[in-house]
Amino acid sequence: MNAAELHQDAIVIDGLIIAKWNRELFEDMQKGGLTAANCTVSVWEGFQNTVNNIVEVNQLMQASSDLVRPVHSVRDIRRAKEEGKTGIILGFQNAHAYEDQIGYVEIFKKLGVGIVQMCYNTQNLVGTGCYERDGGLSGFGREIVAEMNRVGVMCDLSHVGSKTSEEVILESKKPVCYSHCLPSGLKEHPRNKSDEELKFIADRGGFIGVTMFAPFLKKGIESTIEDYVEAIEYVVNIAGIDQVGIGTDFTQGHDKQFFEYLTHDKGYARRLTNFGKIINPEGIRTIGEFPNLTEALLKRGFGESEVRKIMGENWVRILGEVWGE
Amino acid sequence: MNAAELHQDAIVIDGLIIAKWNRELFEDMQKGGLTAANCTVSVWEGFQNTVNNIVEVNQLMQASSDLVRPVHSVRDIRRAKEEGKTGIILGFQNAHAYEDQIGYVEIFKKLGVGIVQMCYNTQNLVGTGCYERDGGLSGFGREIVAEMNRVGVMCDLSHVGSKTSEEVILESKKPVCYSHCLPSGLKEHPRNKSDEELKFIADRGGFIGVTMFAPFLKKGIESTIEDYVEAIEYVVNIAGIDQVGIGTDFTQGHDKQFFEYLTHDKGYARRLTNFGKIINPEGIRTIGEFPNLTEALLKRGFGESEVRKIMGENWVRILGEVWGE
Repeated sequence: MNAAELHQDAIVIDGLIIAKWNRELFEDMQKGGLTAANCTVSVWEGFQNTVNNIVEVNQLMQASSDLVRPVHSVRDIRRAKEEGKTGIILGFQNAHAYEDQIGYVEIFKKLGVGIVQMCYNTQNLVGTGCYERDGGLSGFGREIVAEMNRVGVMCDLSHVGSKTSEEVILESKKPVCYSHCLPSGLKEHPRNKSDEELKFIADRGGFIGVTMFAPFLKKGIESTIEDYVEAIEYVVNIAGIDQVGIGTDFTQGHDKQFFEYLTHDKGYARRLTNFGKIINPEGIRTIGEFPNLTEALLKRGFGESEVRKIMGENWVRILGEVWGE
Repeated sequence: MNAAELHQDAIVIDGLIIAKWNRELFEDMQKGGLTAANCTVSVWEGFQNTVNNIVEVNQLMQASSDLVRPVHSVRDIRRAKEEGKTGIILGFQNAHAYEDQIGYVEIFKKLGVGIVQMCYNTQNLVGTGCYERDGGLSGFGREIVAEMNRVGVMCDLSHVGSKTSEEVILESKKPVCYSHCLPSGLKEHPRNKSDEELKFIADRGGFIGVTMFAPFLKKGIESTIEDYVEAIEYVVNIAGIDQVGIGTDFTQGHDKQFFEYLTHDKGYARRLTNFGKIINPEGIRTIGEFPNLTEALLKRGFGESEVRKIMGENWVRILGEVWGE
């Protein structure tokens, strides 16, 4: 089986996409051979604005039901594969949308939200993000983790502070993940995770999706798909072949204004960071180029079954452990 | 001038009342000779429910305009004294009602909210309360403090954690307060403040309202007004005669259900504390008995001008410094 055939045959999961929602996105997912993706529907939004986002996304998905299907379970991911569609997992990058209501965890789960990052860059009611001093998981945060465990929502820690992350890993009774991160062993950055952090989550059954967001890669916007694969290999060497997957952080279709929203606290308050120019690594600039990743992994020397695991099978297994189906 | 005459002549400010809002309350304030009081309109409520509380309170105040008047400024406090009414300062016990909007500080100021406690017992977007581990003032919290300084809203730290309190004291360009607290020098309790904490706020121009909430007093529900006055004297000895006032924490008219609301995180989640039976100190069981406090302070040996300061003049001065009028 050559690279193209393997890619077409494999289950391909992207653990984090925060792209502009439109039919062009779904077409590019199709082109890229994506079986399913965790797609962000909330960053700084509160409860009601997040529901409004979901309404909009649902309408878009219905209008493009030839290309995509909603994912509420691992069974839905397998159905997407059978149908040749891309399954859409709704995800939050911030537990802020739960506001102060533990009961909202289940409400949003019913609406399709299966992966939720505990904090986005700064402090919320649950804990603290990676761009400010981190006091750890709050008492309310512990209650939210317990409810996410009960309901079956995966805790994501990518943008979460080091202390809060450690405490969520210890608190959760189900596997948690960094859905999209890079190792600080290759580049020092507040968003990147140290070898110790990667080992800590892996040793406790957790999962790591490796991102290719250029500002966090060693060569920045000069990076190529080979640099991305180097980072994946680096993480595999720490966490093992069964607990690593893909989480690109594709932001396809968004304009400068959206990045201004992302890089300010609450979407409008103080500036937290400034990425400068963002260009995805050469060879995987768009979602449609996803097949190149399978090829690059094979070229790096990963065997077929290893590539299948990294490209999607690992994600499917771990989601099953959390979602319970 | 005897005690009763002094009380009638003095400006009497209660820095914290969280009583059931009704005409009986206003009648008792009249009986107690209150010139003004900081009355809580938000504890766990978000923005809209807090606005709804204010609507209800406004209607009650309008229906009892023979007894009370709204206070937006120090001038309004003096007017209340001249008219023989009680001035109502609206206050929050939790910055949670600001939600994630810095602009809400000014919105609520226009609605009459002049004193806001940064946190109530647990973590919010600003910092952390006194009933859980405290990671300090957040970046967003610093922006909120700056906006409260700009708009003229007093930062209250009574239920705030030790670290967040210290950082608000250092961050604020205007005086801040513990509107209702007791010294842990007389009784060790998470809500009580150490000698060092009392000195720290006083040395930086801050203010301390002394509460009489029985569970935090040395003798608990066996306390009398003399025990309350002992606590006031204790704080005066640390902070000086010019930076201490009254902040009773009267909860008059509330039922068990309300205390359940107060003692659970977010009003419904995990239990934070359990006060057991609450009886105010003998001699000042109701707001109407406020004149006894003037008498007890005189009996303790405070001079007339000292009693005037403690009973209200200090509060008026510090509020003028924060409100700017």
